[in-house]
Amino acid sequence: MSKIIHIITPIITEGIRSLEDVAPFASENLEFRHSLLDRGPSSIECEYDEAIAVPDTIAKCIEAEQAGADAIVIDCMGDPGMKPCREVVSIPVLGPGETSMHMAAMLGQKFSFVTVVDGVIPMINNLAKIYGLAEKMVSSRVIDMPVLNIEQDIEKTQEKLAEASLEAIRDDGADVIVLGCTGFLGCAEKIIERLKFEGYDVPVIDPIPLTVMTASALIDVGLTHSKKTYAPPRDKVVVGY
Amino acid sequence: MSKIIHIITPIITEGIRSLEDVAPFASENLEFRHSLLDRGPSSIECEYDEAIAVPDTIAKCIEAEQAGADAIVIDCMGDPGMKPCREVVSIPVLGPGETSMHMAAMLGQKFSFVTVVDGVIPMINNLAKIYGLAEKMVSSRVIDMPVLNIEQDIEKTQEKLAEASLEAIRDDGADVIVLGCTGFLGCAEKIIERLKFEGYDVPVIDPIPLTVMTASALIDVGLTHSKKTYAPPRDKVVVGY
Amino acid sequence: MSKIIHIITPIITEGIRSLEDVAPFASENLEFRHSLLDRGPSSIECEYDEAIAVPDTIAKCIEAEQAGADAIVIDCMGDPGMKPCREVVSIPVLGPGETSMHMAAMLGQKFSFVTVVDGVIPMINNLAKIYGLAEKMVSSRVIDMPVLNIEQDIEKTQEKLAEASLEAIRDDGADVIVLGCTGFLGCAEKIIERLKFEGYDVPVIDPIPLTVMTASALIDVGLTHSKKTYAPPRDKVVVGY
Amino acid sequence: MSKIIHIITPIITEGIRSLEDVAPFASENLEFRHSLLDRGPSSIECEYDEAIAVPDTIAKCIEAEQAGADAIVIDCMGDPGMKPCREVVSIPVLGPGETSMHMAAMLGQKFSFVTVVDGVIPMINNLAKIYGLAEKMVSSRVIDMPVLNIEQDIEKTQEKLAEASLEAIRDDGADVIVLGCTGFLGCAEKIIERLKFEGYDVPVIDPIPLTVMTASALIDVGLTHSKKTYAPPRDKVVVGY
Amino acid sequence: MSKIIHIITPIITEGIRSLEDVAPFASENLEFRHSLLDRGPSSIECEYDEAIAVPDTIAKCIEAEQAGADAIVIDCMGDPGMKPCREVVSIPVLGPGETSMHMAAMLGQKFSFVTVVDGVIPMINNLAKIYGLAEKMVSSRVIDMPVLNIEQDIEKTQEKLAEASLEAIRDDGADVIVLGCTGFLGCAEKIIERLKFEGYDVPVIDPIPLTVMTASALIDVGLTHSKKTYAPPRDKVVVGY
Amino acid sequence: MSKIIHIITPIITEGIRSLEDVAPFASENLEFRHSLLDRGPSSIECEYDEAIAVPDTIAKCIEAEQAGADAIVIDCMGDPGMKPCREVVSIPVLGPGETSMHMAAMLGQKFSFVTVVDGVIPMINNLAKIYGLAEKMVSSRVIDMPVLNIEQDIEKTQEKLAEASLEAIRDDGADVIVLGCTGFLGCAEKIIERLKFEGYDVPVIDPIPLTVMTASALIDVGLTHSKKTYAPPRDKVVVGY
Repeated sequence: MSKIIHIITPIITEGIRSLEDVAPFASENLEFRHSLLDRGPSSIECEYDEAIAVPDTIAKCIEAEQAGADAIVIDCMGDPGMKPCREVVSIPVLGPGETSMHMAAMLGQKFSFVTVVDGVIPMINNLAKIYGLAEKMVSSRVIDMPVLNIEQDIEKTQEKLAEASLEAIRDDGADVIVLGCTGFLGCAEKIIERLKFEGYDVPVIDPIPLTVMTASALIDVGLTHSKKTYAPPRDKVVVGY
Repeated sequence: MSKIIHIITPIITEGIRSLEDVAPFASENLEFRHSLLDRGPSSIECEYDEAIAVPDTIAKCIEAEQAGADAIVIDCMGDPGMKPCREVVSIPVLGPGETSMHMAAMLGQKFSFVTVVDGVIPMINNLAKIYGLAEKMVSSRVIDMPVLNIEQDIEKTQEKLAEASLEAIRDDGADVIVLGCTGFLGCAEKIIERLKFEGYDVPVIDPIPLTVMTASALIDVGLTHSKKTYAPPRDKVVVGY
Repeated sequence: MSKIIHIITPIITEGIRSLEDVAPFASENLEFRHSLLDRGPSSIECEYDEAIAVPDTIAKCIEAEQAGADAIVIDCMGDPGMKPCREVVSIPVLGPGETSMHMAAMLGQKFSFVTVVDGVIPMINNLAKIYGLAEKMVSSRVIDMPVLNIEQDIEKTQEKLAEASLEAIRDDGADVIVLGCTGFLGCAEKIIERLKFEGYDVPVIDPIPLTVMTASALIDVGLTHSKKTYAPPRDKVVVGY
Repeated sequence: MSKIIHIITPIITEGIRSLEDVAPFASENLEFRHSLLDRGPSSIECEYDEAIAVPDTIAKCIEAEQAGADAIVIDCMGDPGMKPCREVVSIPVLGPGETSMHMAAMLGQKFSFVTVVDGVIPMINNLAKIYGLAEKMVSSRVIDMPVLNIEQDIEKTQEKLAEASLEAIRDDGADVIVLGCTGFLGCAEKIIERLKFEGYDVPVIDPIPLTVMTASALIDVGLTHSKKTYAPPRDKVVVGY
Repeated sequence: MSKIIHIITPIITEGIRSLEDVAPFASENLEFRHSLLDRGPSSIECEYDEAIAVPDTIAKCIEAEQAGADAIVIDCMGDPGMKPCREVVSIPVLGPGETSMHMAAMLGQKFSFVTVVDGVIPMINNLAKIYGLAEKMVSSRVIDMPVLNIEQDIEKTQEKLAEASLEAIRDDGADVIVLGCTGFLGCAEKIIERLKFEGYDVPVIDPIPLTVMTASALIDVGLTHSKKTYAPPRDKVVVGY
Repeated sequence: MSKIIHIITPIITEGIRSLEDVAPFASENLEFRHSLLDRGPSSIECEYDEAIAVPDTIAKCIEAEQAGADAIVIDCMGDPGMKPCREVVSIPVLGPGETSMHMAAMLGQKFSFVTVVDGVIPMINNLAKIYGLAEKMVSSRVIDMPVLNIEQDIEKTQEKLAEASLEAIRDDGADVIVLGCTGFLGCAEKIIERLKFEGYDVPVIDPIPLTVMTASALIDVGLTHSKKTYAPPRDKVVVGY
């Protein structure tokens, strides 16, 4: 029987994510599904965007588990709603922010994020503190490009990401690069090429592929999140959700 | 002209908070106002509760600023929505969790939280890490009482809080006690009395009074949050909020 | 009845601090008083200066409490004598170093000090470690100007402080600026103006106003320091003090 | 074409590890291979044991890559030789100590190790510091049983592990349990059962299954270790190896 | 030519320290000298005591250098005046608190202090933070005995210290014990004996012998403190010192 | 009776270290002895080199103790084999990496390493984490010169070290410099001269002299490593060592 990994893209914008993006990882043993939000922001670039993305992300997560998913992946580097989702379902819920940071820490001594805009830096820093990896993350560098512009000129995007990665390696001492927005999916190859040309053989993490395959590994070994950390919500009156 | 501090209690339950609670601190120079949520949970005891409290907290915060408030205080120790609120308004937005932790760190070498239920402990620990005070917080102890039961037998509540405080002092080395739920407002005095009886002269922080007066101090000196950390959200399409 | 906040300027130099400096914060409910030292240094710029400022600061603190003060503020960013003073009196004793660091941590993600001379940097770093905020303080930058020269050309001073602040923001990632010497009182406005002109909307903390109003807040809510951390000295023979 | 994961058990003792142990994870796409050492200790319980296990572990690692392996897993929680192995090959080299710590940190807020004897505790603590996870690991508890005795009375072993796990959860605040010796492979189920009986729904990590499947995920997404952290050794004269 | 190490006991009480105490370490190459204070406390057990000990400690330190000392050792675990003394002289100034913590960290993975009274704990914790060793110090335990009573019943003192050491080892995980008051000089042997009887082979650091011999080592290799950290005080008007 | 300190240079290359190097510290009370390895690398510049240096270092350490040594010093900044050596002997075993870091932390607020090649940086960083001094070490700078080339043009080496030291002081804020390879023995003087010329009065630690004299101090006061951290290996079958 096939494993089902359900990807929730926690925004309302169509056309940014499709199952094509993870098709190379699908097999007869691994099926991918996908949801967008009905209510929320068109992209996530600050705390406010994240706050209004979370309630519907939770709803989609519950639906996905009921529809048979074996694991959930939230498709945003800020991991919006990851913690409340873990409270409301029993299957693993992975965020690419958390997963990438831990894997980056395993692949080299220090890592850097290269990401979209200044506004996300304080959020990434806070995640690193909560995940316990602040000491391993030496910098976050931005290419100053809003999420919804990433694909307008993908070559320009890749070039800017490669520049930011080079600075992270040379000036900040990064040993591993993490693409700091899931909208950069597919950009790793060009960056690696450029880094190699400059003499640097460092891994560049493309978070969604890594996170879905990590979810797959957790399903295989039967592990899910601790209900001691993520206890189910108590029954109580709620209005509007 | 009088300062206006607006308190947002980020739940839908009436009767738990009233302006009576802060009346002793009001004066001709300091007016308090108050909002409850229209949409959200009846109490906040886990990540899920918090997630669905945040959107309407933000809405109430914007309204309060438009109605002339000089500062906002969010009435919950988890500081739900504090960060996105700081992005959408220009006045100071204070959370009693953050304020109490920093003040506790100033009043003694180590502090402990005494709070309601196990479910809030991971959230408090995460806040301490983000605020940079994890090293100063030596423990969180719970009295195993849901928020909405606190006032059913207030003497019992106070007794249990005093017991938990004693354990925090004796076993965990706490020098300062923080009441870890704003629903405990008014309980400090009895606890202090009991601690003194046992030979301990340690401060017990009642978070809402301390937070509103800290907000008042910030208004007096003209300080508000950094727009470099809390930049206004970019204009973008949003559905449902 | 009016609160009394007593400011001790822990040096012997007259004319640097007067009650005029805090007059805007005085009211019928809040009276300020002030002491200079009889014995000590003319300014504080290193560990030695601090060491010989402390004994008379303690003496002035005891006198102030006996004269009816409700709180003490020590007027130096190194917080000289703050800890022993807390042992010998029962009222709150605040240092602007500690208070500013905690408040800066609340106003933005990272803060920097801009201060007088290199000699004070190790002392500030040590305070940040003791107060638990080393991780939040990203840098200290100096304008290379001894304390007693600050007022000789106040415009020059402000200009240099603005330059140092810009560097802290741009190169060190500061979100909040703390004026690292209480002799800079009144300089915040010009710096904020300059920072805004350069596109940065970040708070600049003027420590003495913030610290006296924080002291006022503590008096209002009836909090003082933990006697578990700051127990009264045991009775013993002392010579010379 | 099938992925090949090569497991090196860094001791000389036969009969402790066989490919049966990971057979449930093998498939037409995933082949496992295995080596023991020719030279080294019969078990690893201290720094000395580890020191004499490393040289032949490196040799076996080079052989495995030459024989076509896509990833190496070192079968000991102390991760002996993991770092030098990463220098001498180009494929991913995973240690179950590092992998389990990072995964444990993702599954809950705090984790504990339950392991064999006191002698390994300083080594585990040092690994946690190097991996950056010391803050997430709340304790290591031992069952006081040498590695080579684990299988003599496997029920006794499981019972003792369950006891140690309960203490870690109740007294140390663990949210996740990590089996701290790869010799415990297969013991997780009984421990989980006992913990559930006591009311605790926490994950128990069996390191080898988790580590091999994490290696599989890294192979799938094409990631390997940073050559900036793990540069190939310079050519030089070596005697005896 | 003989090295001269000058010990300053920063209290006014005669009869507690004599050169007999370090006589076993003297030789034709190593001479010890000693000063008591003229002005200061009779013992040091809190911040206040320390504050009034520092000015005369500095004076004695300057005198000792002028009289030809090659290094200074301050005879109190709180290292009172160590930092200002380093500013005013060019020879090494060592504190037994700092020296013992660093050496303890070299001798085992974690260390504990066993000391006199509760009042010194916050001071020791602050030193550990400044020295960077807070993570290595797992506890401080007290025998509840004022400094001036230590020698009244030295057997009782040693017994209590052994008890506290055992608790530190068993309950706090200490690998090394530091005698947390220099008044315990000579007590290590009895404690070691007791610990060995209980099955623990752990070092017990007697701070003054260790610190004087470390000072001797620094003299031999020609190292002294960084004038970048401890710059000489600027010339300025001082009253009373 | 004379103390014997045995220096093990954990490589096979003759002519790099001789007892001449420490002759100035020898006396009638202090004898030095020396071993090279029979099996191992010609120099140590990465994890692999270190791994194959350790087994024979342990063997030489056991031999040295049996031959009457009172302490062992391992002559490499990576402290290869220091921990297993402490398990197999009862006398103090010191590494110059650990000793220099702790002493550097005592001599100034922050220190930097100046060392040979990039490959050793991750190893030094890991040591700093294990020793608890990562916060005190602000940088490691390399002169890009393999160990075996150091003496080819010793003036060039010293010049490059002085340059790297200046950068560490000016750009990284170092207060103390540590020579990050024991092959630099004797280079400190020229660097100090250059730093003074540039206006910096900071200590430059030459690790071997400092470490042998620290070992001497430990012998004098009768301290050795904790057998609780470094318990003797259990008896077990070993092949090849």
